[in-house]
Amino acid sequence: MPDILPPDCVGLVKPQSHKFTTPLALDCGSTLPNYEMVYETYGTLNKNHSNAVLICHALSSDHHAAGYYSMQDKKPGWWETCIGPGKPIDTNRFFVVSPNNLGGCKGSTGPNTINPETSKPYGPDFPIVTVRDWVKSQARLGDVLGISQWAALVGGSLGGMQALQWAIDYPKHLRYCVVIAAAPKLTAQNIAFNEVARQAILSDPEFHAGHYYQHDTLPHRGLMLARMLGHITYLSEAAMRKKFGRELREGKINFGFDVEFQVESYLRHQGTSFVDRFDANTYLLMTKALDYFDPASDYNNNLSAALASVLAKFLVISFTSDWRFSPARSREIVKALLDKKKQVTYAEIKAHEGHDAFLMPIPKFLQTFRAYMQQIEI
Amino acid sequence: MPDILPPDCVGLVKPQSHKFTTPLALDCGSTLPNYEMVYETYGTLNKNHSNAVLICHALSSDHHAAGYYSMQDKKPGWWETCIGPGKPIDTNRFFVVSPNNLGGCKGSTGPNTINPETSKPYGPDFPIVTVRDWVKSQARLGDVLGISQWAALVGGSLGGMQALQWAIDYPKHLRYCVVIAAAPKLTAQNIAFNEVARQAILSDPEFHAGHYYQHDTLPHRGLMLARMLGHITYLSEAAMRKKFGRELREGKINFGFDVEFQVESYLRHQGTSFVDRFDANTYLLMTKALDYFDPASDYNNNLSAALASVLAKFLVISFTSDWRFSPARSREIVKALLDKKKQVTYAEIKAHEGHDAFLMPIPKFLQTFRAYMQQIEI
Repeated sequence: MPDILPPDCVGLVKPQSHKFTTPLALDCGSTLPNYEMVYETYGTLNKNHSNAVLICHALSSDHHAAGYYSMQDKKPGWWETCIGPGKPIDTNRFFVVSPNNLGGCKGSTGPNTINPETSKPYGPDFPIVTVRDWVKSQARLGDVLGISQWAALVGGSLGGMQALQWAIDYPKHLRYCVVIAAAPKLTAQNIAFNEVARQAILSDPEFHAGHYYQHDTLPHRGLMLARMLGHITYLSEAAMRKKFGRELREGKINFGFDVEFQVESYLRHQGTSFVDRFDANTYLLMTKALDYFDPASDYNNNLSAALASVLAKFLVISFTSDWRFSPARSREIVKALLDKKKQVTYAEIKAHEGHDAFLMPIPKFLQTFRAYMQQIEI
Repeated sequence: MPDILPPDCVGLVKPQSHKFTTPLALDCGSTLPNYEMVYETYGTLNKNHSNAVLICHALSSDHHAAGYYSMQDKKPGWWETCIGPGKPIDTNRFFVVSPNNLGGCKGSTGPNTINPETSKPYGPDFPIVTVRDWVKSQARLGDVLGISQWAALVGGSLGGMQALQWAIDYPKHLRYCVVIAAAPKLTAQNIAFNEVARQAILSDPEFHAGHYYQHDTLPHRGLMLARMLGHITYLSEAAMRKKFGRELREGKINFGFDVEFQVESYLRHQGTSFVDRFDANTYLLMTKALDYFDPASDYNNNLSAALASVLAKFLVISFTSDWRFSPARSREIVKALLDKKKQVTYAEIKAHEGHDAFLMPIPKFLQTFRAYMQQIEI
């Protein structure tokens, strides 16, 4: 909790929401008859409505990207390093919109919200949503806010995938596209990690086939395991070594199954605290959206063809130690864009933080990101 | 099941066992008053007892390293590629001894064997064993078999760690030491993966604090998850891509949580079949032995100092795509040996199979291994 908010912070913020009554047809074949989306905004929309930036969030994230809800908050939004006055996404210039994705668990319609047809939480009946579905729902939010063309679409990890899909699906509706620490599709290994996480949740006896809300419980063991596993893939081996090494919590080996090494303590803490703040059904949905994302699949697995019609200019950023979505994966996107003579800037940032680097205050990253955003005309 | 056993197979084999009645003091402070070790042997011990090779097994393995138990067996021993007439560990020359480690679940005293003091399975009361404890128990087995000096100690992965520990603890009792796909200690990331696997087992409601035998059940969900996770780390990203890519089992996306991608099918199969053949308490013990292994810790974290007194000549082998114990980790061992002017041959084998490469018939690996073993005088 800050005593005084720093001058480069957007300050105290409040989520807003909009109820959509036009049905939304989803990739899976289902239709959401109506739904709600919560979002936050930072900065001011200019007269021409030409300075709007849409932030797309990653797997376990939400709409609270910057600022604080109250002076009692311990932490600001998840991208406080990048959004604020004078920051890369400069709220003195840009009007920033940050929605919670459909299927999420922080206010937008999802498994933990009430299904009006049954008056019970959707639970496992909430349809599987894709990156394309999210983009469609975000486009409708843009309509509501009077934004016919975004100055930029910006996202990291799964958020970067949404930005990429935007450029493909709505080429005229964005001028710039910033894709950070992402990939054009998951590898078998990425899918494998997601599958273990899903099995941890699905096999938890307290999952109750997704209806745990009615049983007044939740699959805390499974969700904890999923999060612990996720965290291993978010950090690089070097970051873990630097952070924990083989440090023993009590300075000695105890020959037991309680926490012994600091890294175990860290993972258990990450796991248990996640259970209090995230919904297991949402976690399942998000991993599926990741697995399914593959814009080239509609173009005979040719990513260049998939990107043939994009009009946005691209900034693609990767981090050297990211082994979840390695620089090589970002370069696939860059290559496909170049194949089609699109304008793309690529920055491979030297960083030991692994995939999580996109959330960290890494000077070279912030400088590159800021410089790119500054040249965007509004 | 082979119709006829190939000429380079050791043929039909039978496990043997020995009951030890001299108490064994363990690193953890406990003492095993008596214990049994099962083992297999292949080839013939020569008159001078100078041709014996000890095989140390890895995490989920056992004493059945080569040959078949019956003509109905579907699979031979786990290192059939490397042990047999004319193979790298040539049973025409060597007398091969392959024990099941203490704490194992295939016959040697471990959690699933009866504790004579309680007439119930040891379960969680089986003490935590270390690589050093295993080496001590293996040395006693050597005494029983009349082997005062091994021609070679050989192991892959956790087995390689045992071979290394042998060279440190019993320098005069081995002439050659072959350390394959191993590391001088685990990284924080290695420990982190082990911890998630352990938590999967420990948090399974059917684990019953390790006393699941008495409840006529077992923590199948937890053990399945642990094995699925393990398998991700045994294969390289490239091997997974080559093996599965993003192949869909039914050729199309089904928008559900059943198996969709081939890699999911593979992992679930590996997980469920493991549950039928391995004991969860043993899995916990083996991961702890891995975490604790750190021979340099007694020498002010100086690996060179730890290896100062070794007398054996070393062969160290790593595989380029192994990200569990990468070539860099093997080179740490090589460097420490060279620091102390020890004789060491190092081979970094180009292979896309990942950590599992040490179990695979990779020509360059087998050739190198064979050539080295051939020059061992017996």
